[in-house]
Amino acid sequence: MTPEEKLTELGIELPKAPAAVASYVPWIRTGHVVMTSGQLPWKDGNLAYTGKVGSDVSEEDGYQAARLCAINAMAQLKAAVGDLSRIAQIVRLEGNVHSAPGFQGQPQVLNGASDLFNEVFGDRKGHTRTALGIFEMPLNAPIQLSVFVEME
Amino acid sequence: MTPEEKLTELGIELPKAPAAVASYVPWIRTGHVVMTSGQLPWKDGNLAYTGKVGSDVSEEDGYQAARLCAINAMAQLKAAVGDLSRIAQIVRLEGNVHSAPGFQGQPQVLNGASDLFNEVFGDRKGHTRTALGIFEMPLNAPIQLSVFVEME
Amino acid sequence: MTPEEKLTELGIELPKAPAAVASYVPWIRTGHVVMTSGQLPWKDGNLAYTGKVGSDVSEEDGYQAARLCAINAMAQLKAAVGDLSRIAQIVRLEGNVHSAPGFQGQPQVLNGASDLFNEVFGDRKGHTRTALGIFEMPLNAPIQLSVFVEME
Repeated sequence: MTPEEKLTELGIELPKAPAAVASYVPWIRTGHVVMTSGQLPWKDGNLAYTGKVGSDVSEEDGYQAARLCAINAMAQLKAAVGDLSRIAQIVRLEGNVHSAPGFQGQPQVLNGASDLFNEVFGDRKGHTRTALGIFEMPLNAPIQLSVFVEME
Repeated sequence: MTPEEKLTELGIELPKAPAAVASYVPWIRTGHVVMTSGQLPWKDGNLAYTGKVGSDVSEEDGYQAARLCAINAMAQLKAAVGDLSRIAQIVRLEGNVHSAPGFQGQPQVLNGASDLFNEVFGDRKGHTRTALGIFEMPLNAPIQLSVFVEME
Repeated sequence: MTPEEKLTELGIELPKAPAAVASYVPWIRTGHVVMTSGQLPWKDGNLAYTGKVGSDVSEEDGYQAARLCAINAMAQLKAAVGDLSRIAQIVRLEGNVHSAPGFQGQPQVLNGASDLFNEVFGDRKGHTRTALGIFEMPLNAPIQLSVFVEME
């Protein structure tokens, strides 16, 4: 099953790749690597969630926000590579969670992104990850996710 | 116009590349990529700005601090590659803004770096970017910027 | 002297490479680069230090925690490459220090990782570095360190 078929099976339609919010581009290719800029949980032109995870945003909603960042990242990757099957492996997710004081569940929240990448690209295409609890975030977004992939 | 000519036109003289502040090096080349360590807004041996953007440092001064980080990064890149025309594209700016509580203007602040890179290297050499609001920063710097470029 | 011999001279036995704490992998190779996920100061299955550096954790203990993250990263690299002599250079340490309000000694703390990499791999194999003061951290860890190396 291709990544696109898997997305269809999951009922996910990739959105139009979100534009960058300032003077930069949403993705770039260098050598065999394609990387995205920091992705926020955009849905239909608005942030689907805002605020700090652990106070304004529940851990479960944080998981959904991370999943939404992953969907937006996949839209960027598709804009970059055309056919998601051309991605040999997911190299890295850099996960940043806008965190309320004392919140330490960043890994569980970011699994919202990791789980979806694993489902769509298959478990064998594991990825490295970072998970940080960030103090303030552009547009008060709860999550900012960057994705690095390797082309075949 | 070469990047060096563009810098001259803008009235910018690249400083001596700032030394690292600890046990590491300010730039490295791996394959076709040159990357810098985190750059701070040094000017003539001192930090030109200190403190949190949104309280100690205005958004406009934050923009200038980000621009200064970009100038220092270009000095590192010139030390690395000799001739800035050898840079094929600016791959990524990792932008970290020392942020006061509630400050969400990280993208506008980091445009101080992005705008200068776009001016000097041309708009076609767009870059990916991250923008995080950081809690505490070495030496109380308002901005820390890392730059990744691809050599021809 | 090989890196492994240097480790023995320093009295360091690399542990079993720590597992990832969620849905990802602890290291990956892409092209000539091997990178780790964020490493925490695990020792014998527990975090050897927890809390914010500058309050719960002293700067000296923070240095030791960063050194321990470096040891765990070296264990990951050894799992990835087999023989540490195959590493041509240490490319980058991304250092994140869980910081108490007002703490600005992130560079000194992260020297705990940099100094050990320099000792084991030799000063000529310098690395770039970032140093951020992070607000909240998974499992309340004081340090999270990611390492990028280039294979020969």
